[in-house]
Amino acid sequence: MMDLTEKTLESAAVYRGLIVNVRRDKALLPDGRPCEREVVEHSGAVALAALTDNGELLFVRQFRYPYGETVLELPAGKLEAGEDPLEAGKRELLEETGTSAARYTDLGLYYPSPGYCAEVIHLFAAFGLTFTGASPDEDEFLETERVALTKAVDMVLSGEIRDGKTQAAVLKLAMLLERERGNPA
Amino acid sequence: MMDLTEKTLESAAVYRGLIVNVRRDKALLPDGRPCEREVVEHSGAVALAALTDNGELLFVRQFRYPYGETVLELPAGKLEAGEDPLEAGKRELLEETGTSAARYTDLGLYYPSPGYCAEVIHLFAAFGLTFTGASPDEDEFLETERVALTKAVDMVLSGEIRDGKTQAAVLKLAMLLERERGNPA
Repeated sequence: MMDLTEKTLESAAVYRGLIVNVRRDKALLPDGRPCEREVVEHSGAVALAALTDNGELLFVRQFRYPYGETVLELPAGKLEAGEDPLEAGKRELLEETGTSAARYTDLGLYYPSPGYCAEVIHLFAAFGLTFTGASPDEDEFLETERVALTKAVDMVLSGEIRDGKTQAAVLKLAMLLERERGNPA
Repeated sequence: MMDLTEKTLESAAVYRGLIVNVRRDKALLPDGRPCEREVVEHSGAVALAALTDNGELLFVRQFRYPYGETVLELPAGKLEAGEDPLEAGKRELLEETGTSAARYTDLGLYYPSPGYCAEVIHLFAAFGLTFTGASPDEDEFLETERVALTKAVDMVLSGEIRDGKTQAAVLKLAMLLERERGNPA
């Protein structure tokens, strides 16, 4: 296997924003030639596939400004500086859906768009749910919905669910549960 | 269902980059209060789950500078201005893996990170492959790999595959083929 590593020569912050910063680096390609690399920096995020005891997943529907449309997604949110991903997930699940969970399963990492974006989204499943009451941030306008996991899988496969982390986490959870039931998909 | 729409008041380009631009808008929340919205703009992309007749998927492994590591992904690439997504997919599949396909299936849209990012990735499956010869761009250093679809599913479920579009497209394809075989997952 050849060494594909690119070595950083210089790094410059070119944009400081609300959610992201952008960096422009000079780097060396594997063959030693120079290149320029643009990186969108982000503090990281977490998303949770929270499953009720009767097989329903909790969703939030919100207006996503970059697309100019409402998008159906799993509950999710940004990590605060130095925050543990699972603790952030517990906080977001409570804020957005008013739910606490008794058990969590790690569903792995999700890189949204690795060509230019450095965000890491931590995916979890959550079980044993207790409902208390949602308290979204005051600039967060969202509706919560419950969708049967089987229907959510259909909505991913039909293209109705467009959010990538939701596609990945819903299908992972469905396949892992199917395998636990001894019927490898 | 309440109206969750946010209305744009002003829009300003704040960064013009190599792959992305950033826009900062003033908008109105659903309750009429003002807010600021940051949007990372991107020309869009395409990714393909190309399956050989003996059940192997084509992958590319490349150094992804934002993460400082090599990442295993489905063949993918950016759309050129006004380019049809499937035509772009055919071009990228040929450039990166030297492969043409006889049949394509639409696997839907993938929104990488809808809180701030406007990129749309078009997902396709490709079948009936013919191999000619790869011709990656001269600043593209990548290795191609073939992985059995069943193993690729395992690698997604174990967390070994971190790229989000690859997670989504691999699991979608596996589930759709499973359903075609009359065994709904």
